[in-house]
Amino acid sequence: MKELILELIEKGKYSEARNKLIDMNEVDIAQLLEELDKQKLLIIFRILPKEIAAGVFSYISYELQGYIIESITDKEIKNIIDELFFDDTIDFLEEMPSNIVKRVLKTTDEDTRKLINQFLKYPEDSAGSIMTIEYVDLKKEMTVEQALEHIKETGVDKETIDTCYVLDSNRILEGVVTIRKLILSNGSTLVKDIMTSDPIYINTHDDHEEIAALFKKYDFISMPVVDNERRLVGIVTIDDVVDIIDQENTEDFQKMAAMHPSDEEYLKTNVLALAKQRITWLLILMISATFTGNIITKYNEVLQSVVVLASFIPMLMDTGGNSGSQSSTLIIRGLALGEIRTSDILKVILKEIQVSFIVGITLSALNFLRIYFLKKIDLYISLTVCITLFFTIIIAKIIGGVLPILAKKLKVDPAIMASPLITTIVDATALIIYFSVATRLLHI
Amino acid sequence: MKELILELIEKGKYSEARNKLIDMNEVDIAQLLEELDKQKLLIIFRILPKEIAAGVFSYISYELQGYIIESITDKEIKNIIDELFFDDTIDFLEEMPSNIVKRVLKTTDEDTRKLINQFLKYPEDSAGSIMTIEYVDLKKEMTVEQALEHIKETGVDKETIDTCYVLDSNRILEGVVTIRKLILSNGSTLVKDIMTSDPIYINTHDDHEEIAALFKKYDFISMPVVDNERRLVGIVTIDDVVDIIDQENTEDFQKMAAMHPSDEEYLKTNVLALAKQRITWLLILMISATFTGNIITKYNEVLQSVVVLASFIPMLMDTGGNSGSQSSTLIIRGLALGEIRTSDILKVILKEIQVSFIVGITLSALNFLRIYFLKKIDLYISLTVCITLFFTIIIAKIIGGVLPILAKKLKVDPAIMASPLITTIVDATALIIYFSVATRLLHI
Repeated sequence: MKELILELIEKGKYSEARNKLIDMNEVDIAQLLEELDKQKLLIIFRILPKEIAAGVFSYISYELQGYIIESITDKEIKNIIDELFFDDTIDFLEEMPSNIVKRVLKTTDEDTRKLINQFLKYPEDSAGSIMTIEYVDLKKEMTVEQALEHIKETGVDKETIDTCYVLDSNRILEGVVTIRKLILSNGSTLVKDIMTSDPIYINTHDDHEEIAALFKKYDFISMPVVDNERRLVGIVTIDDVVDIIDQENTEDFQKMAAMHPSDEEYLKTNVLALAKQRITWLLILMISATFTGNIITKYNEVLQSVVVLASFIPMLMDTGGNSGSQSSTLIIRGLALGEIRTSDILKVILKEIQVSFIVGITLSALNFLRIYFLKKIDLYISLTVCITLFFTIIIAKIIGGVLPILAKKLKVDPAIMASPLITTIVDATALIIYFSVATRLLHI
Repeated sequence: MKELILELIEKGKYSEARNKLIDMNEVDIAQLLEELDKQKLLIIFRILPKEIAAGVFSYISYELQGYIIESITDKEIKNIIDELFFDDTIDFLEEMPSNIVKRVLKTTDEDTRKLINQFLKYPEDSAGSIMTIEYVDLKKEMTVEQALEHIKETGVDKETIDTCYVLDSNRILEGVVTIRKLILSNGSTLVKDIMTSDPIYINTHDDHEEIAALFKKYDFISMPVVDNERRLVGIVTIDDVVDIIDQENTEDFQKMAAMHPSDEEYLKTNVLALAKQRITWLLILMISATFTGNIITKYNEVLQSVVVLASFIPMLMDTGGNSGSQSSTLIIRGLALGEIRTSDILKVILKEIQVSFIVGITLSALNFLRIYFLKKIDLYISLTVCITLFFTIIIAKIIGGVLPILAKKLKVDPAIMASPLITTIVDATALIIYFSVATRLLHI
């Protein structure tokens, strides 16, 4: 199918290509357009029916959106903006340079312009930034028949009609009713008798994390967004929430690998931005690692007198770091999904102590077998290594379990307390234990 | 509200409590029941209207589900199973011990029992394991009016009526039509004229990752699942997909922290299972870290003659490890979201070389300032440390960028190539560079 259309376009048979295209899903049309050269892209885009063109427009990359807007007439821009859902308009304008934003705003009427400017001002992480205004509003005195008639008249431009919002004359949210309930009810029933009063809602300033948590908890498809007077200002739909969930996870992955979070795609981010994203944390961790170096300097005599001790340092540091990050990852993830609360701190500590006992004894025993029996290392040195390993694992797991929870208590993002930071802390701890045990056991 | 209901239950005013409860969202009722002692829980659960009871049942923990089933009559079990959505029944049965499964199956009729057994057999990671059978099916010759009438008659038991599925007499999927299109169309229009033919569908054996990718790509709310003959066997709804996305992410977080993935909640997992999840990888990494130790042993003379060199080892190893995991995290995430493909490998290498140049020069320069000028370390030793740091960062970032892509090419999960494994590889590399530079520059 795709090859056929590309061939038709190649041959200049545009209207034939168009007829094949309009049967496809808008997402797939957008993907196909991305593969064309810019001139052909423009030709095809302009001959698409305008509702489809707007849908396709919302799915192509920001770069091509900018190119299209720069290449078409004001009239055509107006057509697209009229057909686009409001949240897609805002998404797109947020990414455009100011000259394009100005040009787009010029084509809209004053009310829309005002609304766009208002929406562009919502903080990036708030409900305001992802909500849309194409919802169905009903009055509670309507009958089901009137409500369905109203939906039939106004529904074509709405992003979703699955849930309808019942408002009073001041646009204050009084209830919600699903299209399913309307269809399954008798025509003469009043909306107020089948609506859910006291619906669960979002405030314009709620952040993305809270919104995602509400959608997950209640399995909603859409949710109303209200201002401080409980007036309905928009709705958030599940497709945007899915994007949020991905973004929040990407941020956590990045923070946990000691980077400033960024929601730009890797391949589309320039080299300088990538470098900047990474340098600060590397620097902080590099400097903290010198403390570990200082410990080695301090116990240099120990290393000089029992040379073989140095060769176990990487193993002790790595195992400590890995043990700690296992624990911190589980706790950070549990906190993010709401499965662990800060009040669970004692349960976590208890669990980590038990787990680290099992892990510590197993690894130390295996390690003892390996270095004492296989590598024939001196008994006391073998014991020094294994005792250190055991205590390092225990301390690493407790630190890994506790730090994310403490961070959350102090309103710091727990994701910061991940592998790199834990590793640095545990490294130093491991060495201090190592040299303390060594000096005692080996009488150095 | 919650306190009031708990008080009413405390005082034994059950029917009053019930009247308050049934106005609440089922998720919130479930949460409230979880806080009651088991006897009270059972009393309240039994006096809930049966549709609400089934909804609440699907939201409470598996432990309490098991307890309730064990405590109620066969008749009551049948009522719950009749009202439960099929996917919730399967979810619940999957977690129950076999005696409970048997008891539940005994209460169902033969057809349901057959179907349950068939669904329980689908692989855990397949579409079959999350689909449900409560969908609306239409015929393409129906008029919109007939279709809406049909929905009105059968819709009350369906999980969603937002999208309806058009089937031929052999239940082969011919198209889909949204409730929105039906409502906005003229009553005499035929379904076949407004349906989307060639709808995008899932196969029963598609895995969760592919399903999530399709939902994200097309912003669907539900998707049809067909067998190899394209017969409709069920539908998947977005709420289950959101759960999948969370699960897939949790798995990636766990793999990236060197653990066997598990989808059990941390606080609900027992200590032995947690220890088992962690030991294997720690052991593998512990043994690989001994190679790094061997390098230290081999170059022991170098360390003996220039004692201060040892104190920079932790800093070099940590910075190398962190640089590598930054890169691997970005690439693993990009691969998971479909933003990076294996064919992008050269682009990634080129980008990582450029980024690592900037990062390497910055960190090495700052480090040189610190150790040569501030700590007054010998010029050649300072140079040795900074040159090693520079090359370690470059190699770490290339390894971190390339390994996840190679893993994907070899059909291994890229998430394995994360922080812990990269650290182990980079540690050894850093030390080899360090000692090679040192022997040359310091003429040892």
